[in-house]
Amino acid sequence: MTLSATEREIIENSIRDVKDFPKPGIVFKDITTLLNNAKAYGVLMNHLYQRYKEYNLDYIAGIDARGFIFAASLAQMLGVGFVPIRKKGKLPYTTISEKYSLEYGVDEVEIHIDAFSEISNAKVLLIDDLIATGGTANAAAKLINQAGASCVEACFLIALDFLDGQKNLKEITNVYSLIEVK
Amino acid sequence: MTLSATEREIIENSIRDVKDFPKPGIVFKDITTLLNNAKAYGVLMNHLYQRYKEYNLDYIAGIDARGFIFAASLAQMLGVGFVPIRKKGKLPYTTISEKYSLEYGVDEVEIHIDAFSEISNAKVLLIDDLIATGGTANAAAKLINQAGASCVEACFLIALDFLDGQKNLKEITNVYSLIEVK
Repeated sequence: MTLSATEREIIENSIRDVKDFPKPGIVFKDITTLLNNAKAYGVLMNHLYQRYKEYNLDYIAGIDARGFIFAASLAQMLGVGFVPIRKKGKLPYTTISEKYSLEYGVDEVEIHIDAFSEISNAKVLLIDDLIATGGTANAAAKLINQAGASCVEACFLIALDFLDGQKNLKEITNVYSLIEVK
Repeated sequence: MTLSATEREIIENSIRDVKDFPKPGIVFKDITTLLNNAKAYGVLMNHLYQRYKEYNLDYIAGIDARGFIFAASLAQMLGVGFVPIRKKGKLPYTTISEKYSLEYGVDEVEIHIDAFSEISNAKVLLIDDLIATGGTANAAAKLINQAGASCVEACFLIALDFLDGQKNLKEITNVYSLIEVK
């Protein structure tokens, strides 16, 4: 199930372009105008619920920090657990961590080692607000798999298609992007 | 409406104490074990829904990053907008910012200037996972009021009562803490 034309219009129209953020030349996709619009936020979350209710998911994992918003809401709607994947140093218990390359330098994400311990071979949906080069999402999926679960799909509200990030998602078989920016 | 004994037991038992995080001598209240437990997370969110459904709220604001989890879920359940209050430099559009004191130094939070512009005199619930000294929450409430809305209540999953943070919430009349750590 993908977005209807009406759903797509409501969601696309509620995302704001902010020029020159975080640096000159970048057009930032601002989703706060979607989130503070009750109708648009409701349409989005209802769409995700309708799509994923048949997946028999065990957990929804969200990437720090905007991914938490959609992942935690959807987990509540589906009645499953929510697992945060965080930037290094934020999770208090024993973690598994994974480095990934940025344009300049290296970053690192972590997951609690026992995040999925209550359910064996758990089916996990990974959510983030946006996929750019795909480095963070691929590292996050690797962590899910290393923690003993299975990342069955990754879902992004926005895909920056001109960066071709999907080719870097080697750990993820299924990818669903709602809004594609050419 | 406050927690029933059964709800309280389920929620309290799902929060993990992690010693010496983020530094020696601190016992960190780890809520990831609540979030990845579908039953406990469901009990918590249902309680918040039952409490706040009669408040006629217009928005739920959440504080970066763990506050996003509960605030975004509750906003979806209540059918209202979600507004993120973020650490400095994360929001792309024009912001209002507010400094507050930490044990050593100063920190700063921001809100988009037009976060509540769709509804005049909007009633806003502020949510964070934990209140320690109250500096962040008070600054967040001030931002809500400065952005033209009204912070009608602040809700915390956990209050560290030994830090007496409520006395610093000068911008907030009503405070609801679910779990109080003596």
